[in-house]
Amino acid sequence: MIKTGSIKKIRQLVADAKADGKKVGLVPTMGAFHEGHTNLIKKAAKSADFVVVSIFVNPTQFLPSEDYHLYPRDVKKDAKQAAELGVDVVFVPTAEKMYPKGFSSFVKIEEITDILEGEVRLSHFKGVTTIVAKLFNIVQPDTAYFGQKDAQQLAVVRKMAAELNFPVKIIACPTVRDEHGIALSSRHQYLSESQLKKARGIHAALQEGSKLIKSGILDFGQVRRRIYDVLNTYGIKRVDYVSFNQWDSLEPVRKPGGKVLISLAVRLGTTRLIDNIIMNFKQ
Amino acid sequence: MIKTGSIKKIRQLVADAKADGKKVGLVPTMGAFHEGHTNLIKKAAKSADFVVVSIFVNPTQFLPSEDYHLYPRDVKKDAKQAAELGVDVVFVPTAEKMYPKGFSSFVKIEEITDILEGEVRLSHFKGVTTIVAKLFNIVQPDTAYFGQKDAQQLAVVRKMAAELNFPVKIIACPTVRDEHGIALSSRHQYLSESQLKKARGIHAALQEGSKLIKSGILDFGQVRRRIYDVLNTYGIKRVDYVSFNQWDSLEPVRKPGGKVLISLAVRLGTTRLIDNIIMNFKQ
Repeated sequence: MIKTGSIKKIRQLVADAKADGKKVGLVPTMGAFHEGHTNLIKKAAKSADFVVVSIFVNPTQFLPSEDYHLYPRDVKKDAKQAAELGVDVVFVPTAEKMYPKGFSSFVKIEEITDILEGEVRLSHFKGVTTIVAKLFNIVQPDTAYFGQKDAQQLAVVRKMAAELNFPVKIIACPTVRDEHGIALSSRHQYLSESQLKKARGIHAALQEGSKLIKSGILDFGQVRRRIYDVLNTYGIKRVDYVSFNQWDSLEPVRKPGGKVLISLAVRLGTTRLIDNIIMNFKQ
Repeated sequence: MIKTGSIKKIRQLVADAKADGKKVGLVPTMGAFHEGHTNLIKKAAKSADFVVVSIFVNPTQFLPSEDYHLYPRDVKKDAKQAAELGVDVVFVPTAEKMYPKGFSSFVKIEEITDILEGEVRLSHFKGVTTIVAKLFNIVQPDTAYFGQKDAQQLAVVRKMAAELNFPVKIIACPTVRDEHGIALSSRHQYLSESQLKKARGIHAALQEGSKLIKSGILDFGQVRRRIYDVLNTYGIKRVDYVSFNQWDSLEPVRKPGGKVLISLAVRLGTTRLIDNIIMNFKQ
């Protein structure tokens, strides 16, 4: 496995692989791997011939008030894991290389980024789509892998790729959960033991909502109230939103139909956690 | 020569050409070819092995008040000329194909698009960079050709390609002028004979400014006044700006140094015309 921060080098490696007829898969990450990441990498290793994993804590997707400097970093450990999983190249650019002085070029997906996470994290998705566009242009992959846990990010990246005609197929991978149902997140490193225990309420609440709907309760207002109740039972008091949106246009929905994304964001101390489930309704 | 509006088709044609080891050149145009366009195409035909010319009057780069519907269109004539010049593919997509319902993905270069043309044509460059990014992703050219007449557009596209890491080399081509020094423009079709005569004053004024500087007048305020005087002499009364900017960062400059872009925009009736020259100063 090759580890490089050079754009020129990575382009050469990918060009060589393509010349050999290989299909290139990209897994964009911010590092601090957990099983969610390794799962994406395994999927890439299965479906692509040449796997590039980028590790880059992207400053433009953090608000000034957020945890950019605190965000966990362990490139050495990540690279070791990547090598074990059969990754061909780990791309670890510096922030200065990705955003040179005077940088002012951005990719922005409008409207769909104004809701849910975008409502709280104002310029977050502009940073995400800009770095993903840059990585697509640097690596020129055939496929790119994104986790379903960041459902809105997945929808936004899909919309970007389709509307700006990036020649990249976006592949979604299911959320990986621990034995208590908690969706794995690098930000769990911020949580105390008692907060981690409370976090179990997130998936429990989503499951309760889903159960309610399956039992025939089709009033989303009622379902939302029940989800809040479960969160409260687990000691989660600060809820940013519990939302029902069409998948994957993210149009708000009031009544079941098609694929519905039920997503939420809560705060435990200074840590913000998100999770979601997607439910299929017969049309 | 193949003429197509299909993204899938053009991707296949380009993939085949690349598999044959050919270098692909793209000339993005809005059609209504004049010698400025044919010059770009000739340059592409010389330096690339496989030439794609796109003809697309791009709605997102026109303000609602502008001439999108009036803009001259003659795809048949353009395609005939392209064929004669050895173009391999003419890409003529529809607006519906390029901007499907719900489209909301944009590429925006900030700051450098707020001045000069961007000050008057507010969302113009956002439309330009969005369509150019789309065309780059559809055609995936090795080189792309842009005219020096639209100097700010050239600077903006270069900045976009560099900062978003598009694997495309931007090639600038000199402005083509008629026997009276008028920079060729598809919008000349809007002008009356007497307006066309007045338009001769644009290049005359830029040349007078350049002459003044060469004679040792290094005060750009004074040079600007002389340029206004010449424009007036030719009957051009409405001047949007006469500006001195560093090439190609477009930082405003007050004193000669490096490469300086002298650019202007004037109005003749309802038609807006732009032109520029670049002067080299020893550092």
